[in-house]
Parts: sequence; C-alpha cells; structure tokens
Amino acid sequence: MGIQGTTKTPSPPTRRALLRSAAATAATLAPGIAFAARSDDMAAIRTAVEKGHDAAIARIQDWIKHPTIAAERFQVDEGVAYMSRLAQEAGFTGVRAVPTGGVPAVFGVLDVGAPKWLGIYFMYDVKQFDPKEWSVPPLEGRLVDRPGVGKVVMGRGAVNQKGPEGAFLAALHAFKASGRKLPVNLVLIAEGEEEIASPNFLTAIRDPQVLAAMKKCVGVIIPSAGQAPSGNATITLGAKGAVEMEIVSDSKTWGRGPANDLHSSQFARVDSPAWRLVQALNTLMGPDGHTPAVEGYLDRVTPLTVRQKALIAEAARSGNEADSKKAMGVQRWINDETWEQSLERLASQPTINIQGLVAGYTGQGGKTVLPHRAVAKVEMRLVPDMTKDDSVAKLKAHLIKKGFPDIEVNVTGGYGPTQTPEESSLIKAHKAVLTRAGVPYALSVRSAGSWPGVVFTGDPLHLPAAQFGIGTGNGAHAPDEYFVIEPVNPKVANLTAQSMAYVDLMYEIAALG
Amino acid sequence: MGIQGTTKTPSPPTRRALLRSAAATAATLAPGIAFAARSDDMAAIRTAVEKGHDAAIARIQDWIKHPTIAAERFQVDEGVAYMSRLAQEAGFTGVRAVPTGGVPAVFGVLDVGAPKWLGIYFMYDVKQFDPKEWSVPPLEGRLVDRPGVGKVVMGRGAVNQKGPEGAFLAALHAFKASGRKLPVNLVLIAEGEEEIASPNFLTAIRDPQVLAAMKKCVGVIIPSAGQAPSGNATITLGAKGAVEMEIVSDSKTWGRGPANDLHSSQFARVDSPAWRLVQALNTLMGPDGHTPAVEGYLDRVTPLTVRQKALIAEAARSGNEADSKKAMGVQRWINDETWEQSLERLASQPTINIQGLVAGYTGQGGKTVLPHRAVAKVEMRLVPDMTKDDSVAKLKAHLIKKGFPDIEVNVTGGYGPTQTPEESSLIKAHKAVLTRAGVPYALSVRSAGSWPGVVFTGDPLHLPAAQFGIGTGNGAHAPDEYFVIEPVNPKVANLTAQSMAYVDLMYEIAALG
Repeated sequence: MGIQGTTKTPSPPTRRALLRSAAATAATLAPGIAFAARSDDMAAIRTAVEKGHDAAIARIQDWIKHPTIAAERFQVDEGVAYMSRLAQEAGFTGVRAVPTGGVPAVFGVLDVGAPKWLGIYFMYDVKQFDPKEWSVPPLEGRLVDRPGVGKVVMGRGAVNQKGPEGAFLAALHAFKASGRKLPVNLVLIAEGEEEIASPNFLTAIRDPQVLAAMKKCVGVIIPSAGQAPSGNATITLGAKGAVEMEIVSDSKTWGRGPANDLHSSQFARVDSPAWRLVQALNTLMGPDGHTPAVEGYLDRVTPLTVRQKALIAEAARSGNEADSKKAMGVQRWINDETWEQSLERLASQPTINIQGLVAGYTGQGGKTVLPHRAVAKVEMRLVPDMTKDDSVAKLKAHLIKKGFPDIEVNVTGGYGPTQTPEESSLIKAHKAVLTRAGVPYALSVRSAGSWPGVVFTGDPLHLPAAQFGIGTGNGAHAPDEYFVIEPVNPKVANLTAQSMAYVDLMYEIAALG
Repeated sequence: MGIQGTTKTPSPPTRRALLRSAAATAATLAPGIAFAARSDDMAAIRTAVEKGHDAAIARIQDWIKHPTIAAERFQVDEGVAYMSRLAQEAGFTGVRAVPTGGVPAVFGVLDVGAPKWLGIYFMYDVKQFDPKEWSVPPLEGRLVDRPGVGKVVMGRGAVNQKGPEGAFLAALHAFKASGRKLPVNLVLIAEGEEEIASPNFLTAIRDPQVLAAMKKCVGVIIPSAGQAPSGNATITLGAKGAVEMEIVSDSKTWGRGPANDLHSSQFARVDSPAWRLVQALNTLMGPDGHTPAVEGYLDRVTPLTVRQKALIAEAARSGNEADSKKAMGVQRWINDETWEQSLERLASQPTINIQGLVAGYTGQGGKTVLPHRAVAKVEMRLVPDMTKDDSVAKLKAHLIKKGFPDIEVNVTGGYGPTQTPEESSLIKAHKAVLTRAGVPYALSVRSAGSWPGVVFTGDPLHLPAAQFGIGTGNGAHAPDEYFVIEPVNPKVANLTAQSMAYVDLMYEIAALG
C-alpha cells in the first residue's frame, strides 16, 4: 500500500515558471523553492528548521534503525513506544497507544488554543525487505551520494514514510525551538498496519477520544514526498481502495480430493482442488481478461466527471507515453487503447488482480503430485462508490451462485476508495502553498495505488484527506529505498524546504476563511 | 515415473494357498517361497546365489552410494561408467554407452548361443532427495531393521530400482560362479533418464545395434519388487503413458502485459498473464473438473474389454476400499462413484493433471504485483491407443483454436501407454514362475503409474514388456526409501528368492514352445 502508485508514475509537469533563489547550502532552502515570510514568526521558524537540520536527519536515520513490520508482527511494542516518544518530543500531549485488535495505533494532540484543528496521519510500520537485494544495510539509514539525484537517506521506510514524516516532525521541533506558537492545533493518529492494508485502522478511529478529536479537524494530511525528480508536484485528490485476500481451494473444505498431496496417477479417480481453483477463478473474470465478471461488482462504480476527464486529458498532454511504457516494460495497453484512455482506465477501472498462484509442486521441473490445496493471492482495487464490505460480499455470493460454495475467500486487509473534493479547504490550501513556493503541480484525479484515506473521508468522519508534501524519493517496497535530503535538481525541495512546506500549510489553513 | 503407482496401490490378495518350507536363514529362500529344481543346474545356481548373498547386498549398497540424477545432470559420466562396469561384471559383453542427446543409455549382450533372447530393461538414475527428510543418510545404503517389515536396505533408489536390479544381477553372478550356462541369451538396455520421463530413450532403442539385438527378444522385463507387504504379487499388463510439461503464459511471448512483475495498480491498464493462464487452462477441462476438454483428446481411447473389466471386478472384490481411501486421505471418489468404478477409472481414464501452479508472489501473505509470467506444471496420463505426440499436438491445436496461440506448451519428457497381452509368452512365463513359487498373484489391467514400456511394446519393436520380480519395498520418490532383504513375513521373497525368481523365469521362457 502507500505511496508507491504515486512515486512510480510521477505526474507530468505543468510548465509553470519556477522561482529561483540563491545557491543552496545543506540546511537552507533548495534554490528553486521559496517561502515568502508570512510573519516574523515564520522567519524565526525557518532559522530554527535550518539549525535543526542535522538533528532531523539523525531522527530519520534512528527511526529507520527501529522498524516495525506488521506482516511479521516484528517489533510491535517497540514500535508503539518509539512512535509515542517521537510524538511527545515533537510536542504532542496525551500520547497513548490505541488498541485495535492488531498492531496498536498511536494518538496524541497538540492543542495550542488555535481556532482550527488539522489531522495528521502517520504510518510507523514499514514493508518487509531482503538485505541480499540491497546495496547498503537496509536498517542503517546511511547517507549516500546518488549520482544525478543528490544526497539521500537510504533504508527501508526512508520515503515510505519516515522521511516525509521526519520532515514534518522537524517543523514541529522548529516551532518549539523558536518559541513560536503553532497557527493550528494538531491531532496525530499513527497507524502500525498500513503495509498490511490497514485491517484494523477504523477501530482506532472509532475510539471515542480519537473520534472526538478528529471530528474537530478541517482535514487530514499524510506527509509525503510529493515531487517527481523533475521537481513537478502532484496534488492527488483520491486513491483507489484495495482489498487483499487469498482465494483458496482445499480438499478439507471441499470434502473432495486428497487430504495431502497425492501421487498424480490418482487424479483418474480423485478430485483436484487445483483444477477447482482454476474453474472458480475463471468465473470471476470476463473474457477480455481484465473486466471483473463478479455479479454486481461494477454496480456502484461512479463514472468520471467532466472535470475529472479534463484533468486526465491535461495529464495525458503533458505526460510522455513512451517513457511511461518503457519504465513499466509494457508494449501496449489493454485493448490497445490510447495513452489518454490508459490514464482514464488507471483512475477509474476497478480491478480483481491475481498477485500470485501457488499450488502443489512449485520447484524446478515437474513432480507427479495431485495437490490437496491451491491458492490465488488476489487483490481488488475499488473506485467510488464501491466499498470493501460490499465488494467482498458480492465476490462470496458470486462464488456460491456459480457452484463454488467451498472456495474460501480469506480477506487479510483492505479498505475502500478515498476521494477529496478539489473545492475543499485542504486542497485549496495545498494549491496555495505550492504556488507560493514556486513548485509547479498537476492535479491527479485519483491514484491507482492505495492508502487508507477512506478512514477519514468515509464514515464516520467525512473529512478531506490527502497526501501533502514536497521533496522526492524512490523505491517504496523495493530495495535501496531512499529519501532525498539534498537534491541535485534545484527544483526539488531539500529537507529544510520540505519542513517549511508543512509550516506554510499550517499558516495557510489558519488563514483560510 | 517408475513403479510408484504399483507400490502405493498394491494389488489385493488372490487367497491362494501358500507352499511353506523350513525356516529361513538370511541367505536361503524365504520360507513361503519355493522353486522346484528344473535340473541339477538349478540346484547349483541356487547354492551360488546363497553364497553370493552378502556380495549382492554390498553391490546394491555401493550402487546406492553412486547416484545419477538426470534432472540435475548429476554424475552422468560416472553413472555410465558405473552401469557399464556392473553389466560387464555380470557377464555382458560389448558393453557401451549409447548416445541419446541426453543422459546416455548403456547397452550390452550376454549371448550364450541359446535359441531365445530376453530383453532386460534397467534404469540407473534415481529421483532427487532431500537428506533433511530422511532418518538415515540417503546415499549410504544402510541396513536397517524395520519393525514388522524385516531387514531392509535404505537409501535413494533402493526399491526404485537398484534393489530389484541388484537381485537380477546376483542371479547372473550365480550362473558365472556355478559355471552354469544361461538358458536364454540376454540384451541389456539401461536408461539414465527414467526419472525425468525418458525424453530420449527411443533414440537409444533406434540405435542400429540396439535395435537389431532387441528385435531378437521374445519380450522385455524390468526387474521389480512385485509383492505387497502381504506377500501377494501383481502381474501388471500395462501402464498409462505420462507426458510432463509446463504450460506458460508470459508477457514476452504474448506481446502484452509487463516485461517484469509490475505494481499491481497497473492492472487497470496493463494485461495480466496470470489471468490469461487461468483462462487458457480453463478451456482444457470439462465442467466436472476431471474430464479433459481438449478437442479430440479422447478420440483414441480404447474402452476396457470384457476381460479387463472382469479383472478389475475381481480386484475390487478382493481389495479394501476403506483401507485404500484411508491410505490416500480421500473421502470420496470422483462423482461419488463406487470402489469398482474407481478402479475402472484408475485403469482407463486419461487425465490432464495440474501438478503445480506458480505465478507472481508465492510467499507469506500478499504482495501488490502484476505477475509477468504464470506457469502450470501439468502432466497428461494416456491410455491405449493415445500417443504422446498426438496428445501434445491436440493440446497445442486446442489452445490455438480457443484463442491462446501465445500460451507455451513446453514438454520436458514423457511417453505413451504400454500394454502387453495376457496371452503373450512373457506373461505366461510370469504366471508360471509365480505359481511354481507359491506366490499368490492378481492380474492388474494397467498401472495408473507410468514406465516407458511403450518403447518396447510400441513402434518399432512391438514386444511384450512387463515388470517382473518378487520381493517388496517402499518409498519410491519419498524419504526413507527401502528394499527388503530379509522379510519378517514368510510369504514375502527375501533377496535369494528374488534372484531365484529371475533364474526360474529364464528357464521358463526357454522351456515355452
């Protein structure tokens, strides 16, 4: 989950002129990024951010050294304690773990008596990793000079999401260090299961204290590295939902086939769970190989609006189809559609994807077995107004109706789609901050990747929620993940500029009517 | 491949009375097995077999220490040399490697000027193994006292097929040691790729010298441990053919989908080889989940004869359905058919089995990828008069006709079914030897497991060919494979009796009109 959909398909440039300033040092703003002072406070805060620069890097590095991995239940208690300490040190009070039934969330508030409240969503867990695939130790947070990119922090979680979250924390430390008052109050809710598709996060939100605090907010942001390497930023108005599951055919549930893998000659008289899985899966998919055939699955799909289509058309015009295909290793789109059609489909098409197939013998060559069990790892991606519960229910009902009541649908996590109106105060503030900073941006209708924004934009909160932030990075979920501290490209925000963007956003939200 | 189909489903008893003799010693005949002397020669040979008992065990043990594994091309040259030496030491002349394009075969003759020739098929390769799964080192050939079974040689290849082949070699050594003349001439053809489904064995048979020698034979045997632990033997008149293949859906061949595994959000606009494999596979199988739907696949299936049905009915009466189901971990047969129907199906039903499915992410939990490649490991089992080439051609034509010309069918080995007439001199001799030895036997129409007998029974030789031998063992292809040297059950042949059965067979064949 997370921002990978964004970082892997950066938004095209909008060709705006860039403001340029003097040459950067490590701690000062990136030369292409400007934040006009809103007040004397802001100048003092900027000085404090610059003074805190090395401490901010050290904070990100140390956090990388302390991973929590929800899929493996790795360092859960440690992660809660670490996140709580980070929140307390940044000024949050009432910090506590919120039980969810899974990995706990961490909650805190920073109430300065301002008229407005802003919600801050953190994820403190990271994706699994294999050190053998990395060029550096993945839990060291080493500073690496990356040719053509700049100085980066490399490590698991660097860009997804500890680097951007560290930049946000650095902004709060600067308020403290400069003795300045925040222009808004903050509510922090930090999740520990984002990488396993947030199976319990709604439980945290429904905690009475969390819910009461969140209800005061004008919106929620997740700190993100929102610039492409070119310096162009994207304001993403929504994200597809994603539901992770295993679809399983097993002799035990079926009451047919062998209890364990059996010699394959017996398939002459013993039923095959592997064939049954193939036949059950086949009913889920239309003949074109991409349109889901689950009965009623598409009923709640809301077509793109005229405005959304216009935004996609603009993205198509400013993007580069050949580069995109090359980066993905793709020769043609579904149905040989056009670039613009492919972008529309990416934003609007709900999917049922096979992530993996596992049955019987999976090694080199063959082995004469009749497998007792076959598994498809499947994920659904949902668009408004589909929901997780309704989509899963329809899948299960479909399998029963098609004669496969024994096929197991084991949902391991997921959530519905999230969408935030372009006219919301949060998005207006987002646009204003980027414009003031001289960062060109495009509006993206919807990320095809997923994050649990629906927990804020859906029931019971109905708040605007969006990724916010500048700066860049790469490699979410992949080896050599990195977050850029000091970019070569002057149009990309360095760590100081990233922190100042959060400062500016808070002032902007406070200033909006 | 090999005898596993036989050893795992031993034939039911025929309730014949057993001849019993005096208590056995290690080297003398098992008490329940008798070989009446055909001549003074036979008595002398028996004495020599008994004298050679320990040397015969040592020969089997040393052979186990020298495995050839075709799947891994492990010790190919060493295996050829070892097999050649075994043949020469047993008296074969003109011993040489026969190039096949794969692991070579080994050929030799033992021409004593007798009127008749008998073909001997050996396999000198063994299945892969994982020492971690074994209770003893798998390449030691350790003698183990197995409670309720007796003294066994344990090791990879012990029963499949070095033990039975070692018992045959011991018979030849006894002829030499006693200075007696063989009653028949022998042709030996030893294969090194049986465990990978004999992809090149027909090439060895077509070698002019091999073909000329084989054409003189009245039939071909593969030495086998043909008794169940109860002592009941099976004369198996045929075996299904088996063809091993991978059915592959790959972006590269298809020209659609991603070149490498891609983030799964892109499935909204990029085609999925995994779904394509599911859809292609689905066309191969009928709605009942077991009847192949490949067009024309069943055209050449010859129905069971009245005699074959009668043999199966007899097997059903004397067998135990509950024990069979329990041993296999099966609650019900296909279509909830009866025991007898299940045995008919086992003998007569051609199959297309999924051995394994592999695509994309196969580890714990999920991973948001769109796989670039999906593989089904598939094997066909064929019955007379289906052939390997025709069946593969029909599968490929079917996929093209159904709109899947890009789906790869990569055949790695296999052969058609084999069948030998009950009226052939080889089977008559087989029956006579068992009757004389007092070993009860049943006739099996056809093993559902496979061995490359079709190389002898089909073009160009059209010879009778069958497994022959008494004694028992277990664990072919499994951990702790063993071959019983000195059984607890007096009705089971010990090593000496096994060798004497081969001696008796040669005399019987010489004596037949």
